[in-house]
Amino acid sequence: MKALVLEKTKCLALRDIDIKESLGPDDIRIKIHTVGICGSDVHYYQHGAIGPFVVKEPMVLGHEASGTIIEVGKRVKHLKVGDRVCMEPGIPDLNSKATRLGIYNLDPAVRFWATPPVHGCLRETVVHPAMFAFKLPENVSYSEGAMVEPLSVGLHAARKACIKPGDVALVTGAGTIGLVTAMAALAGGCSKVIITDIIQQKLDLASRFGMVPVNVTRQNLNDIVSGMTDGWGADVVFEASGSEAAVSKVFEPLCPGGRVVFIGMPVSPVPIDIVSAQAKEARIETIFRYAHTYPRALALMESGKINVKPLITERYKFKDSIEAFEYAANPKPTTVKVVIEL
Amino acid sequence: MKALVLEKTKCLALRDIDIKESLGPDDIRIKIHTVGICGSDVHYYQHGAIGPFVVKEPMVLGHEASGTIIEVGKRVKHLKVGDRVCMEPGIPDLNSKATRLGIYNLDPAVRFWATPPVHGCLRETVVHPAMFAFKLPENVSYSEGAMVEPLSVGLHAARKACIKPGDVALVTGAGTIGLVTAMAALAGGCSKVIITDIIQQKLDLASRFGMVPVNVTRQNLNDIVSGMTDGWGADVVFEASGSEAAVSKVFEPLCPGGRVVFIGMPVSPVPIDIVSAQAKEARIETIFRYAHTYPRALALMESGKINVKPLITERYKFKDSIEAFEYAANPKPTTVKVVIEL
Amino acid sequence: MKALVLEKTKCLALRDIDIKESLGPDDIRIKIHTVGICGSDVHYYQHGAIGPFVVKEPMVLGHEASGTIIEVGKRVKHLKVGDRVCMEPGIPDLNSKATRLGIYNLDPAVRFWATPPVHGCLRETVVHPAMFAFKLPENVSYSEGAMVEPLSVGLHAARKACIKPGDVALVTGAGTIGLVTAMAALAGGCSKVIITDIIQQKLDLASRFGMVPVNVTRQNLNDIVSGMTDGWGADVVFEASGSEAAVSKVFEPLCPGGRVVFIGMPVSPVPIDIVSAQAKEARIETIFRYAHTYPRALALMESGKINVKPLITERYKFKDSIEAFEYAANPKPTTVKVVIEL
Amino acid sequence: MKALVLEKTKCLALRDIDIKESLGPDDIRIKIHTVGICGSDVHYYQHGAIGPFVVKEPMVLGHEASGTIIEVGKRVKHLKVGDRVCMEPGIPDLNSKATRLGIYNLDPAVRFWATPPVHGCLRETVVHPAMFAFKLPENVSYSEGAMVEPLSVGLHAARKACIKPGDVALVTGAGTIGLVTAMAALAGGCSKVIITDIIQQKLDLASRFGMVPVNVTRQNLNDIVSGMTDGWGADVVFEASGSEAAVSKVFEPLCPGGRVVFIGMPVSPVPIDIVSAQAKEARIETIFRYAHTYPRALALMESGKINVKPLITERYKFKDSIEAFEYAANPKPTTVKVVIEL
Repeated sequence: MKALVLEKTKCLALRDIDIKESLGPDDIRIKIHTVGICGSDVHYYQHGAIGPFVVKEPMVLGHEASGTIIEVGKRVKHLKVGDRVCMEPGIPDLNSKATRLGIYNLDPAVRFWATPPVHGCLRETVVHPAMFAFKLPENVSYSEGAMVEPLSVGLHAARKACIKPGDVALVTGAGTIGLVTAMAALAGGCSKVIITDIIQQKLDLASRFGMVPVNVTRQNLNDIVSGMTDGWGADVVFEASGSEAAVSKVFEPLCPGGRVVFIGMPVSPVPIDIVSAQAKEARIETIFRYAHTYPRALALMESGKINVKPLITERYKFKDSIEAFEYAANPKPTTVKVVIEL
Repeated sequence: MKALVLEKTKCLALRDIDIKESLGPDDIRIKIHTVGICGSDVHYYQHGAIGPFVVKEPMVLGHEASGTIIEVGKRVKHLKVGDRVCMEPGIPDLNSKATRLGIYNLDPAVRFWATPPVHGCLRETVVHPAMFAFKLPENVSYSEGAMVEPLSVGLHAARKACIKPGDVALVTGAGTIGLVTAMAALAGGCSKVIITDIIQQKLDLASRFGMVPVNVTRQNLNDIVSGMTDGWGADVVFEASGSEAAVSKVFEPLCPGGRVVFIGMPVSPVPIDIVSAQAKEARIETIFRYAHTYPRALALMESGKINVKPLITERYKFKDSIEAFEYAANPKPTTVKVVIEL
Repeated sequence: MKALVLEKTKCLALRDIDIKESLGPDDIRIKIHTVGICGSDVHYYQHGAIGPFVVKEPMVLGHEASGTIIEVGKRVKHLKVGDRVCMEPGIPDLNSKATRLGIYNLDPAVRFWATPPVHGCLRETVVHPAMFAFKLPENVSYSEGAMVEPLSVGLHAARKACIKPGDVALVTGAGTIGLVTAMAALAGGCSKVIITDIIQQKLDLASRFGMVPVNVTRQNLNDIVSGMTDGWGADVVFEASGSEAAVSKVFEPLCPGGRVVFIGMPVSPVPIDIVSAQAKEARIETIFRYAHTYPRALALMESGKINVKPLITERYKFKDSIEAFEYAANPKPTTVKVVIEL
Repeated sequence: MKALVLEKTKCLALRDIDIKESLGPDDIRIKIHTVGICGSDVHYYQHGAIGPFVVKEPMVLGHEASGTIIEVGKRVKHLKVGDRVCMEPGIPDLNSKATRLGIYNLDPAVRFWATPPVHGCLRETVVHPAMFAFKLPENVSYSEGAMVEPLSVGLHAARKACIKPGDVALVTGAGTIGLVTAMAALAGGCSKVIITDIIQQKLDLASRFGMVPVNVTRQNLNDIVSGMTDGWGADVVFEASGSEAAVSKVFEPLCPGGRVVFIGMPVSPVPIDIVSAQAKEARIETIFRYAHTYPRALALMESGKINVKPLITERYKFKDSIEAFEYAANPKPTTVKVVIEL
């Protein structure tokens, strides 16, 4: 079948690849329709590795996907041929302790699309466990289906934050993950979400979604949060930038008893003032991908409480995949998500 | 000052009353502007008692109130003369164990407006602890301010339910409390809220708020919930009717691991099938009034995530208070909240 | 192989039975050593059914078991031949939504030993998924290993109760489940555990474990709880009797903001005064068997924080299994657990 | 009255001091009996300041205290003259938002004994709000009463950790706070508590309390934790050393989904590898003093589940207070708590 293959660092090929996938009794076979390009895909393309994960063999990219079922295993009951679905890209060992506990995203044996040495989904078909595929509601498009993957990060963060109705949240960083986190926080019960960035175009987009933008290059964040909360502080801070500057100041705008969620992944250890966290008894949650989010993302999309359509800013044909990656590696500031349609 | 006094059962008078209230250093004095009529007010009017609380002396009615500050105690810093505020009607003993724990609504010594022998607020002015008064945002009217009290019940229920973003909730009963609970559930992260009643007009109103109405006199609730949740069940059931029929079947539409919140107050013990709750490991929360909800309600109103204006269906002048109560005792099915403006 | 077979109601046979069990790659084969007799085993023996579960074919009894591994599947890594283990009797569908969520005990498709039509473990060998078998620490005997099953109910209840260090708990009912729940509550952080019954011998046993016994036939429970808690009430009430009398009064000794766990299974719906629960904002948890408890039970036994040895009051040889069941059906009041050794 | 006064850095005087304290209606007057010396007392003595808190005027030291009531305010009901009590040293503003929320320890306006400019309790009598004084059980001595304060830190940490029965905990640092945290973790439901230090004598003491000692100067902590948990990791890590070395490696021995509690206060920001926390979805709690712990500490002491007596290693008379401080500033490695008896 045709696939977008990362041959080696900075070398992509759209070519035939020989992947034999047999269909187990609990599996489905899906014809891929839409795949979003994630920052990690671009990173593998440009650097050939992310931390300990190194691309040593040609690897198919892509892990944000939707498609149509073309074959179902004999024990699969809740899905059928023709169903439009999106898929979780990580498949844990069902017999592991982490999976048994319900934290399957933390299973060390998880196999995750486009994380070496596991092939991704930028190819014609994939076989997948039916339990990690989810039917798209009628009013949710394939593109929105592909967006469930990044949105899941935001939803997982929002759930970990234990938002109470009426909370005020702050999201630091208005990239794709910052935006979907802010959307999830608003849908998840926050009365207001303040969002920061250093690029004004990203903030302009955020303000269209009802978020309160703060450009930290020229506005005083702590003063703004204090002013919006009668001096109390934000109930939740979602750190979605991964920048050392943001991480090191994360407790300043927080309220007593508030929660911080670390979503962004700083490239190296960041000096953190634990005493300032203690003075507020901050609870800090950290997240790794997501779990149990897909049905929730789809339900929120279906009901209109979350609308990711404006986040899909560029579309490419499968035949133009390499061009899509070249663009995604050097996008305009207004770009949020580039998708490839098969 | 003038006040609406319940002289005895079924006997109201709008007359002068001698209430001397000195202003302590942590208090404020408020000129009352709007007071909502609650079912409990009507119940005292008609029956003279609610459970162990018996009206033995003439008592001023009313506990859902907003107004304007006309005097502030010397230690009060966060409020000033002229501020528009709404007030929590229950004042706990600040030295009690329950209050210290943050569950001040459960303090047995709480003094609650219009609960004998404590006078209510349907009068010209009241003195109140500043810590239980909350400034109205500019875009929140006095009437909405008065609605913060009933909305607080819904918000408190929603918070106790530990809603996760994307949950599906069911609210049984579409009276005032059912409606504000459904609003709180939607604002608090639910993707969908199904609401039941036996009166079609109430359901028609509910559907205007984006809720899914089910008339249990002619629709099969369990089938509808099952159909909307792929057979899984509702994540949360808010029981807001107090009816024995609803309470006794409350676990049927619930999902495994789901939560039930008992808001409605059945008039007598209801047979409950504990084994059916256990089969789903239902968690059941029960609520008594509310705590910590006022700032949250105002934040959600200010941001437009909750709009209670359509719930204010009838308005009366203070001079027509008795007429208002007579109407509230026999309202049209489309009536939700009757308010009195001073 | 030899097995204890319930042929039909009130008819047991210790006889050869033809059970073919192939060993999957994630399975182990265990030579059974010790099996405890549970009230449900006795109930099937005497009545042939429990609720909707009816014994229609001859069925092997027993589900509280320990043994020695005699064969391991090829993917099993954490266990080996010769390991002494105890086994969770319920095997869920690993592909179900409940299992994915980590609440595998609530999977409707769970197959549970000695629950019709699934054979139990009172037989020479069983094949079992390795992920539901747990190695016994060196200082934990086979008999104690068999006790992990009933202890799991207590531990699951204790965990659901969210015990805070120093809590005072009340356990209503001092049968096997009441006792293991009280043990779990003490090990799980309670400073004191009060336990009730109507049979003095059971209370005498409980007092040996450091529990505070209350004979409700002649002592005033509410007064005692109040006296031990400065009038505040018990932080947690574990209802382990299933008796209507205990269930209907469960909120009386509870503190404001307290938690109730319904463990006992009343034979029919019980009238519950919801308003009295609401006055304290009681949180009510219900449990169905247990999940994730086996490693915890073993760790607590290993460290000596829970000692179940005194609960094993009678031992029978496998050849005397029928006699064991006859005794268990009419035990002395001092009997807690009868075990059969193969 | 006589008091131990810190005149200025390194200058203590036991002298008369003029403190006029009137007894409010909700207050009690206590004759002080025993006061423990805390590291913070010693730090003020030696350095005259802790962070932003600078001793500018002579200040009475001491905040870990017990005594006997000699006078009660007219609204005090639960205490009487002659009662033996211990006292929380921090008095919040009862009208603050933090106090209303139940997190009174986070009230910025809290007045805390021996934190400038507030006098401590190393003096003959103090007046205190009755709601922050707690009656000692009969079997709890004055010295143990004084130990409730440091034990509270451990209990608060244990509660924040949401210990589940059978958890394995690691405590880094075996000083006073490390030891009381380990005690609280064991009493609070842990099956095992591993504790680290670099001083062998402290570990020898810890092992007497049933903790598993690890000397990190010559043992491999991660290997030991891994070995004791089948490679899974510790469920909870309590960081009680404040050392940069311990803080920066805190996520290594942690299990997936585990919790970390930062108790120790590093003197400066510590580089933290957020990505390693994320890989396990670590939840990090931070604590500031404690709230709601006193009754719990006393209940656990009364029932014998926590025994702090062996921690009281040196006793001094009030007249020898200065000598006591000199010793506490340079104690033997076996010293845990030095107390002064009035």
